[in-house]
Amino acid sequence: MASSEFTWSCSVPNATKVIQMGHGGGGRLTHQLIDRIFQPVFSNPLLNAQHDGAILPFGNIELAFSTDSYVVQPLFFPGGDIGSLSIHGTVNDLAMCGAKPLYLSASFILEEGFALDQLQKITESMQRTALATGINIVTGDTKVVDRGHGDGLYITTSGIGQIVSKFPISPMSIQPGDAILLSGDIGRHGVTILAARGQLSFETDLISDCADLSRPVLALLQAGIEVHCLRDLTRGGLATAAIELSQKSHLHFLLDEKSIEVGEDVQSCCELLGLNPLYIANEGRFICFVKAEECEKAISILQSHPVSARTHRIGTVREHHPNGLVTAKGIFNSEKVLDMLSGEQLPRIC
Amino acid sequence: MASSEFTWSCSVPNATKVIQMGHGGGGRLTHQLIDRIFQPVFSNPLLNAQHDGAILPFGNIELAFSTDSYVVQPLFFPGGDIGSLSIHGTVNDLAMCGAKPLYLSASFILEEGFALDQLQKITESMQRTALATGINIVTGDTKVVDRGHGDGLYITTSGIGQIVSKFPISPMSIQPGDAILLSGDIGRHGVTILAARGQLSFETDLISDCADLSRPVLALLQAGIEVHCLRDLTRGGLATAAIELSQKSHLHFLLDEKSIEVGEDVQSCCELLGLNPLYIANEGRFICFVKAEECEKAISILQSHPVSARTHRIGTVREHHPNGLVTAKGIFNSEKVLDMLSGEQLPRIC
Repeated sequence: MASSEFTWSCSVPNATKVIQMGHGGGGRLTHQLIDRIFQPVFSNPLLNAQHDGAILPFGNIELAFSTDSYVVQPLFFPGGDIGSLSIHGTVNDLAMCGAKPLYLSASFILEEGFALDQLQKITESMQRTALATGINIVTGDTKVVDRGHGDGLYITTSGIGQIVSKFPISPMSIQPGDAILLSGDIGRHGVTILAARGQLSFETDLISDCADLSRPVLALLQAGIEVHCLRDLTRGGLATAAIELSQKSHLHFLLDEKSIEVGEDVQSCCELLGLNPLYIANEGRFICFVKAEECEKAISILQSHPVSARTHRIGTVREHHPNGLVTAKGIFNSEKVLDMLSGEQLPRIC
Repeated sequence: MASSEFTWSCSVPNATKVIQMGHGGGGRLTHQLIDRIFQPVFSNPLLNAQHDGAILPFGNIELAFSTDSYVVQPLFFPGGDIGSLSIHGTVNDLAMCGAKPLYLSASFILEEGFALDQLQKITESMQRTALATGINIVTGDTKVVDRGHGDGLYITTSGIGQIVSKFPISPMSIQPGDAILLSGDIGRHGVTILAARGQLSFETDLISDCADLSRPVLALLQAGIEVHCLRDLTRGGLATAAIELSQKSHLHFLLDEKSIEVGEDVQSCCELLGLNPLYIANEGRFICFVKAEECEKAISILQSHPVSARTHRIGTVREHHPNGLVTAKGIFNSEKVLDMLSGEQLPRIC
């Protein structure tokens, strides 16, 4: 599942009575929904593990199991489409559990009137992406809803992978002193979607970062690097992912803001629109918590893969903090606290 | 997955260019979609097994993996709601593979403006149903779409089960001479949904048959009965399920129409509305193909479970037929051919 689902708890006094767009943004409202409804209702030990997916024991093997629905608009955007996104997203969630992605299900909710040639293109994109990542689409379903009750199509994929990491990869495994690595520049997916919607008053050459992250992750694990936690930076971006993990691990993360790479075009768009790139969605970036002693080796392995060629260290895990804390050191060495956004910056980016 | 998905091939010359409601009905248009798009694009040996779910080898165990999206309207109906349906549907698909259902994922697509107390009720119903069937909801996701692009909520569940049958349960395992058993009366779910929509001009006391079918199925398997194939009768009803299996197994099934139980209220509704109960959806009924010698023992086991207490034999598998064939013997011993419906009788019943 996406990083935030069913996992975390906070207390927001003024609960709204109906679903708002912000409930899907990955920020505070999403967490409130999880805290108030999903977590208490579905509570069980496997769900409570608070991971990107569930870890399931089967005899002497462990499987990772993850699901995500995809409702991105527009369906096609520079660098991908809802089909490739629906494969990469779930493959990446499995990889973030320390698993080799193996099998995928795909379920389609089609809106009456949706063009069959678009469906053809999207399924072909899914299959191309699945073949490239080495995962098999093995089962599926199709439902049709009447016009005005969908948006072309929604796709839900669920994936099964086999755990290959020797160490448990989990927020609970993060330790003081761990190095925090970031696999590349941030914010490209979110801003690309915004541009593809025609919501920018200027042209950009932006391309989504949507990509398979399993290869660099598996390379790290095969090399025996002591990886403590992995998290892909989807809805809510780098800041939300870091805050979530700090809250789950009850640790203080100190980030060096200067070391967080933001492309020039992403930076310009964000400045014009008043958005903070730290909170913008990515679909091909992740953070990685490794034992400090193995930081250089981990960076070198990740840099050898094109998708994570610009990996660098962006911070350090500090001491215990009861509620978790993420601070970012800025240009004058001033330290500011990163907080979760209330609603969403950009709806339906995945 | 539901019985029909990604599995079967037919040739319909006048392909439509956009999705129609009938593409979701489980009949000829659904199969055309599968044949023209999903099957050729996603083709692979595991998918081509043409089962209710995929069978995945993991060392010395085999897992069943199945997914379904649920878009039923109304969300609450006599005998269930979209929540209980989303658990029963996927649990039943796993059971139809000869698997013990173990783990479930749940992904929600929520529409802006959907009442949180409804969401609460539905998730509670899911958890209650999951606990009753013994499956664990272990991971999930939530997305929100803007008003006018959903219908309250859609749920996609995916399930993992462990295969416990000693014999391969598959359309390919059906053999001439096999007895065909039906687990109870048919058509109650579809007609209940119709009534719950207020589309009947009279009142009924109808209650959906929505139920967990895994217990009677596991009891059959534990008793060592040589079960060749199982299929739950969802969209398209008994007739569509039988036609699909006959086409996949290339066999002729002869049904005795008099032995197919239809409740009096379902019968009256169908007569008034010009519907054929053989094609009406069920969510708690299945057919079972067993070796003829074990028919009585199988019936006795199934009858000992409340959900299948009215199991009886409804037909026999006859000889090879190149395209598959289902015939039904009526009251004057006349034999008529059952054909797949073109569109759908009742949209969005699951």
